[in-house]
Parts: sequence; structure tokens; C-alpha cells
Amino acid sequence: MIDNLLGLKETSRDDITAILDDAVKLKNDVLEQDIKKSNILSGKSIITLFFENSTRTRVSFELASKYLGATAANISAGGSSIAKGETLIDTAKTLEAMGTDVIIIRHSMSGSPHLISKYIGSKVINAGDGMNEHPTQALLDIMTIREKKGKVEGLKVAIVGDVKHSRVARSNIYGLNKLGAEVVLAGPSTLLPSNLQDMGVKVYTDVEKAVEGADVVMGLRIQLERQKKGLFPSIREYNKYFGIDERRLSMAKPDAILMHPGPVNRGVELNPQVADGSQSVINQQVTNGVCVRMAVLNMLANGKRYDNLV
Amino acid sequence: MIDNLLGLKETSRDDITAILDDAVKLKNDVLEQDIKKSNILSGKSIITLFFENSTRTRVSFELASKYLGATAANISAGGSSIAKGETLIDTAKTLEAMGTDVIIIRHSMSGSPHLISKYIGSKVINAGDGMNEHPTQALLDIMTIREKKGKVEGLKVAIVGDVKHSRVARSNIYGLNKLGAEVVLAGPSTLLPSNLQDMGVKVYTDVEKAVEGADVVMGLRIQLERQKKGLFPSIREYNKYFGIDERRLSMAKPDAILMHPGPVNRGVELNPQVADGSQSVINQQVTNGVCVRMAVLNMLANGKRYDNLV
Amino acid sequence: MIDNLLGLKETSRDDITAILDDAVKLKNDVLEQDIKKSNILSGKSIITLFFENSTRTRVSFELASKYLGATAANISAGGSSIAKGETLIDTAKTLEAMGTDVIIIRHSMSGSPHLISKYIGSKVINAGDGMNEHPTQALLDIMTIREKKGKVEGLKVAIVGDVKHSRVARSNIYGLNKLGAEVVLAGPSTLLPSNLQDMGVKVYTDVEKAVEGADVVMGLRIQLERQKKGLFPSIREYNKYFGIDERRLSMAKPDAILMHPGPVNRGVELNPQVADGSQSVINQQVTNGVCVRMAVLNMLANGKRYDNLV
Repeated sequence: MIDNLLGLKETSRDDITAILDDAVKLKNDVLEQDIKKSNILSGKSIITLFFENSTRTRVSFELASKYLGATAANISAGGSSIAKGETLIDTAKTLEAMGTDVIIIRHSMSGSPHLISKYIGSKVINAGDGMNEHPTQALLDIMTIREKKGKVEGLKVAIVGDVKHSRVARSNIYGLNKLGAEVVLAGPSTLLPSNLQDMGVKVYTDVEKAVEGADVVMGLRIQLERQKKGLFPSIREYNKYFGIDERRLSMAKPDAILMHPGPVNRGVELNPQVADGSQSVINQQVTNGVCVRMAVLNMLANGKRYDNLV
Repeated sequence: MIDNLLGLKETSRDDITAILDDAVKLKNDVLEQDIKKSNILSGKSIITLFFENSTRTRVSFELASKYLGATAANISAGGSSIAKGETLIDTAKTLEAMGTDVIIIRHSMSGSPHLISKYIGSKVINAGDGMNEHPTQALLDIMTIREKKGKVEGLKVAIVGDVKHSRVARSNIYGLNKLGAEVVLAGPSTLLPSNLQDMGVKVYTDVEKAVEGADVVMGLRIQLERQKKGLFPSIREYNKYFGIDERRLSMAKPDAILMHPGPVNRGVELNPQVADGSQSVINQQVTNGVCVRMAVLNMLANGKRYDNLV
Repeated sequence: MIDNLLGLKETSRDDITAILDDAVKLKNDVLEQDIKKSNILSGKSIITLFFENSTRTRVSFELASKYLGATAANISAGGSSIAKGETLIDTAKTLEAMGTDVIIIRHSMSGSPHLISKYIGSKVINAGDGMNEHPTQALLDIMTIREKKGKVEGLKVAIVGDVKHSRVARSNIYGLNKLGAEVVLAGPSTLLPSNLQDMGVKVYTDVEKAVEGADVVMGLRIQLERQKKGLFPSIREYNKYFGIDERRLSMAKPDAILMHPGPVNRGVELNPQVADGSQSVINQQVTNGVCVRMAVLNMLANGKRYDNLV
């Protein structure tokens, strides 16, 4: 079983499946109950340590912790220096010394969760590290695919957008490949990763070729500030060449699902008709996000699988 | 019974009375107990979503939630974009998808609580929307009046200050009128609403005429930044012409009470002698704020009146 | 027993010892348990009111509150005006009116905790007031000394650094003197207090004379921004003349312990070899910080000593 959740690159197929199975049970036993409260993590201390702003991810982890009865505290180091020049390792050791069982870290530096996990006994969850990984996002995506399609193996998943800078894409490629899905990428040539061969995925600059026959179409969020750096054309052109609209979505399988990690730039990555359409599973992704986070938190803090008989 | 609390304009006299009655019981059963904790909202998830800063209102809702045993999380979108360009409806749907039972929203745009309430199943409480309403503030004011005077019907309530921009004043006018009080307004002519006839209130530019014979004198907070826009004279002149001091308060009934939504600009809206005087009920207003918020949260999250036998 | 915790200047030797004794029991009964949760402060409402940023102190108090089962809420008034021009006394009265049992205040103005404590029934803990005191930091330091050395009386404690501006130093001098330790200070002459005689401590500008034969060596955090004001030489020179390295630490007793309130500027106050060395007790200080805060919170909110039989 997993000791930390640093990335899906280092998580086995069996461990991914175990997290998803637990998440499904917790969805039923906790989140969908009228009383969303349990004692599963009673007396466990969980801290979110976010060096980059992300309200939705932070709140999702916070609610997952509280629904399981844990003690939760938030540290936001958005603008200011969280610890006045303290090293990241010293900050982590300080939180460990306060009795923290799990530290959930988001940091602009790739590998920072891996770094602190070597120095502390508290468990570590990567909530996004630079351009490396965002494993719980991929887990919730895969949970949603499995829920909607009944399986993951053999499916064609098309990921469209700024694949190069996207930790969401990287975690999904690792996870989906391990579970036997075929991942294809599409985006402007300036936003495609250079190490494509290593990742075992096909790459297109023509979004329609990527989407064709797909079971899952996933739009990635465009960081609008990258446009200024000349990495992609104007927003209007981006939407024209890479935005997912009804016509493009119709090129996927008739029962394909449409995903997006949120928040959506409407009219850029997705046109409103498809974002709000019957194939969109965006809100289910959010719900499943709370569920996979509950599953991971339980595994790390309790050191065992969730057992719905307890 | 109420489904959401969007404003007192759309809340019936019976519903207002029901909230006040429940608030009185919860004050006794929870807030005034040595152990301020109950299971009334155990397993219910409540989120404050504040696009404008308001520490006191946010903390009041947070404590009300926690005193009832709910799961509470705060989202502050003060300066930064909460969701990186996401629409307000998408933000609300995201929170709903995380299992949120009640969203408490403060937003500079009038009507924003009404808007999101149409798109989500989570219940919505308006904690201040632009220059429209701030219904829980008016409910706590009316609860305090009823507590101190034994009734609301037939009382004369004088509201003094920047009535034009005040959502507190608007909510109070709606609520007090429904409960049979006579509301009169006073303030600089530039700070008086133009649609006075519609609101069924008398308006004075002479504060002393408004206060004369009043049972309740309520000072409103002056937004000092409006002075720069020329909407009212200097602070000193404001205090001279509209500030409530001992002499002016003595023109009200001898047993009149003095109210203010806080925070008070001492020496501007109220002189210290009256703010700290025996007729001031400012601190009771704060206490009752927690109580009406507990009552509303229970109604919305549990879908029923508070029953002190449960 | 203490009514508030405003400073160690006004806390008796017996009260300090009582807090430390309770903290030791709570460390064993709560913090070191697998389930860090109790009902000791169930239904008590605790608010941190921080006008200066301090993530580590705030989180330590928040976790201490939650480990004891209290309702905890945070108010951060770092940059913005918490209450839009409201006086500190009015803010405190507002929090009291919301049912707050304990207010934990950090403020740049010396004496502000003392001020509000005169106006409210809520208990007050000073979490740092200007250059005056930071009593829970000194209590955790003294708890760590007692834990490691078995006693406090008769020990030599050398405090090195910006003693003049340090509320940590001042609280430690008051506390350690009351418990019979000998305190000596060292630092640049511009950073030494002028009222040395009153405080009953020896002062050196030569750090090696201060450290010689010490049982405890405590480095203080240097506020790097003071260097710009010319109050001490460059960082490199500070480290050269006042930084604690292996050679200087070896001048203390062989079993001396090394302390620092954190966060450490590595290579300035402490060289990494000693910060991470076997004599360093920095992480134990953090752990004991949660414990002394639990002890103080219980005393103030429950009005009695912690009894491990309850």
C-alpha cells in the first residue's frame, strides 16, 4: 500500500485500483449520506500547505478531511513568505513536530513533495508540484472515467490543450497508461512536450485527429498568462483551432464523455454548449475529487484500506 | 418555510417571525450554555464564499455553523480571483458538487445570491449583495428590537446615515415594514435613496426630526471612501449635522435604544458617550447575529424549524 | 491560578510551574496518543486575532485548540484593517459578544493584550505584543529546558542575538529568573537593551564569554530588515561575530542544549551543523509549544487545572 502520494509515476496499478475502490465505497458511505460525517480520521491531524493559490483543491482536501472527522488546518503561503525565509524542510519538520499526520503540499517547485517526504515521518500528499504531477486530480479523473464507462482498459482518452505545462496531463498519462488506456494528446505545437516518446503517447497538432473515435475527451485549462509569452496564439484563435465545441465532440464516440479539471475558461477550452451538455461530467469530477482524497487520506493516516464494516 | 435567504423583500412576515422565534430558543439552548456545541447540524457542510472582506460577518456565520456542529469552510476571494476567471455559476456548482449544503455568499454584485440559487441545489444565504440587501443583519436588528421593546409593531425606528448605499437599511426597511414598524430615514440629501415612495418610509434631511419620539435610533456606518467622491461633507461636518450624540438621542423616547451594525466610526456616526451609554444595544446585536444565523442555517440545512425537544 | 496570560512578568513562579506540569500531562494524554482528540474544551470557543503574520504560532494555537475539542476560528488582520477603523476594544467586545471564551491576540502594539483584557470577560492570551512579551514561547522554552535538563534552577542560559527587540528574550528572562536560572545575554551592542540592570541579567558583546559554561544556548531570530537600518553589520559579519557554530557551542557545557524559537535563518544565527546536530532541541520546542498552549487554554477556558483523571 502507498506510504505517501507523490505522483502516479511512482504508484503501482494495484495501488491506483485500491484507491479508486476505496473512493467508491467512501462516496457511498460518507459523501452521499445525509450526515456527511464519520470517525474514520478522528484525532488525526491534516494540514494543507499551499505555496500556490488553489481554492478548489484546498477546499476539496479540507472537506475530505472534515467529512472523515479529522482535525484540519490550512496554511496559505500565496503571496507572503510563509515562514520568513525558513527552508522547506524546516517548515515540514515544524509541522511534523506539531503532531501533523498528513501534509498536503502544493508548490511551484517540481519534486518538493518528494523532498520533504524524505525528512519527515508525517505522510505527504502532492497537491501539485510545478510542472510535474497532480496525482489526486488524475485519480479523480480516472475514477470518473471508470464510473461512467465501466472500465478504463482499452479506452481512447484524448487530452487537449497545454499539455506541456500541465501536471494534470502528466499524472493522467502515467495513471491511464498503467490502467491500460490509450492516451493521445493534442495542442499547439509550442505547448506539446518534447519528451513524447518516453511517455508512450501519440501526439497531434490537429485536435480533430486526436478526438476521433475517443471514449473520453479531456480539455485542459489554458493559463491565459502564457499567451503573452507567445506560447500560443490569441484566445480567439486558440478556441478556433483547439477549443472543443459540438462539432468536434461529435467526432468522438457517440457515448464519449467530456472532462475538464476546472475552472473552465468558457469559450476558450470548451464552448458553453458542450460544457453544459449531456456528455459533460465536469461536476461529477468535482464530487469524485472529494472521494479519492478521502480514500488517500484514510490510507495514509490510518495505514490501511477503508473497510466499510468498521 | 424559507428555501433560501436571499432578502427580506422576498421573505414573508410569518417566515421572519419563525426565524426570530427559533433564534431566541437557540440563544438559550446553545449560545448561552457553558458548552456551546450541539449536533443540530452534524454532518452538514457549510461554506462562506466572500468576494468582499467582512471579518465580523464571516466569523459570525462560522461560529454559528460550528456551535451547531456543522462542517464549515471559508473561501475568501477578497483581492484575488477566487477561481481564476470561472463564472460565479460554475463556482457555485463546484461547491455544490463537493457536498455543500449551504453556501453563504457576499458579493459586490446585487442579485448574485439570487442568480446562483437558480442553478444549484445547495441552499443560499445572502450575506450582503452590492447595494441590495443584507438580510441576516436586519434579522438580528429586529430580534434585538423585539427583545428590548417586547414588540416590533407600532414602533418608530429612525435610521440615520448613508441610507442610499446601505443594504443594511434596505433589509431593515423591508423587514420592519412587514412587522408593522414605522421606519423613518435621515441623512445628507446626496445619501438618500431616490425611490423613497416605493419603500413606504418618510425621509428627512434634518436628523432631529427623524429621531424625535423614536423608539429605536439606528446609526449606519459611513463608508469614509465615499466622502472623497463628494457624496457627503467632511467627517467633522458629517458628525456635526448627522452624528448621534447625547442631545440628539435625548430627543427620542426616554427608553429608546441605540443601534449600529458595526464597526462604529467613533466620533462620526456615534459619539462615544452614546455608543458606550446605557441605551446602546450594539453588543447585544452582535450576540443576536450569531443566533439568527444559527436559526437560518438550521432551517435551510435541516429543512425544518428548530425544535428544542430534539 | 492565572486569569489571563498577558506576560510572564505578571505570572508567578507557582503559576508557571502549574502550566508546565499540566503541559507535561497533556503531552502524554493527548499529543502523543494515536488519536489526538479530547473533549477537554468541547463547546468552548477560541479565536486567534493576529494583527501580525505568524503562521507557526497561529497554527500551533489552532491545533492545540482542536486537539482539545474546542471550536476554533482565525482572524488574520495582516495587511488589511480587520474591522475598517474599529478600535481594538470594540473588536474585542464584538468577539466577546459572539460567545468567544478565549481570544489569542498578536499585535504590534506593546500592551494591547493587557488593554483589551480590562474591557472584556473573554480570557486573553498574549501571542506577542510589540517588543514586550511572547509568554507561550518562553513557557515552551522553559518546558523544553526542564524536560532535557531535569530542572531549571541553577542553570546558566545564554541568549544570543537581537535581545533588544525580542519579546521572546524578554519573556524568557522573566520566566527563567523566576524559576532560578541565571540568564546571560550576548549580541551586537546596538541590539542590547538599555534597561539591563532592571532585568537582572549579565550582558556581553562577546558571544563566547556568554556561552562559556552554559547549560542552554538559545539563538534568537534576526529580523533581517533591521540590518538595513544599520542596527547590525552585514549578515556575513553577524554570523562571524555572533552566529553559533560547532566551535562556539563546544564552549558551553558538554551536555548543553541548543535552542531557537524558529524559523531559523540558517548560516546566520545558527550554522547548519549545530541546527541539525545532536544538541539541538528545536523540534522538541515546537512540540512542547502545542503542549503549553493546550495547558494555558484549558486553564483559561475551564478555569481549572488539567486533571488527567477527568
